[in-house]
Amino acid sequence: MKLDVEVARARMTAADHAVLCTTHDVRGVDAVPVCFSVAADLVAIPVDTIKPKRSTRLQRVRNLERDPRAALLCEHWDGRDWSQLWWVRASMTRSAVDDATREDLAQLLRAKHPQYESAPFAQLVIFRISEITGWSAT
Amino acid sequence: MKLDVEVARARMTAADHAVLCTTHDVRGVDAVPVCFSVAADLVAIPVDTIKPKRSTRLQRVRNLERDPRAALLCEHWDGRDWSQLWWVRASMTRSAVDDATREDLAQLLRAKHPQYESAPFAQLVIFRISEITGWSAT
Repeated sequence: MKLDVEVARARMTAADHAVLCTTHDVRGVDAVPVCFSVAADLVAIPVDTIKPKRSTRLQRVRNLERDPRAALLCEHWDGRDWSQLWWVRASMTRSAVDDATREDLAQLLRAKHPQYESAPFAQLVIFRISEITGWSAT
Repeated sequence: MKLDVEVARARMTAADHAVLCTTHDVRGVDAVPVCFSVAADLVAIPVDTIKPKRSTRLQRVRNLERDPRAALLCEHWDGRDWSQLWWVRASMTRSAVDDATREDLAQLLRAKHPQYESAPFAQLVIFRISEITGWSAT
């Protein structure tokens, strides 16, 4: 069944990680796991993570320079009990924000993941959510 | 570090579920969790799952009719120990296969997920893998 949009937003905000999908001019779509933070209709994703993966990072940014649209998918999997499954997807577009907003999103991300204390991210990519869709098996 | 392609393929084959990404004419990309089976360079994904989700299912198929390219992402998440993280991504294109090949992929899918015994899938969508990329934190 379809999730209420506020329930879907709350589940996404609380989720510990997600899959970021961007467009790719040859492959059509790219996808990569990411950490993220959410505030109102903004999503922040660190480009540099604790383990550098240079080509992947550059590809993700290249994709967004060509096409700023993206999707973020959070999901709950339970291989034994499919009645527990749910997912939430945000459709979003890369956006510019002011420095204070960016720093708020950075603080939220550091609060979620203590790993960033010892290995800070270098940069955030910010998106504005245009639509949130969620589904739950029950 | 980048995973060897055969290691990446083995991890994807053994994974219990994945995220399927397709292109969408307005949103750019769509993403949805899926079960799947792999044999050689073919991937099968059931369109009807145990809980019908009509609009999502139709959208996925509509996306593939417009653009047959897709990506499948399998990942391992560990919120406490990021040294355990890995992901594998297959770039693929929707393909036609003969009935025997389709039935082999269906049997593999039923073997992975006993849930399909009581709620059989109606249809499989078959993809041919063009590239497998994998990354591991260690």
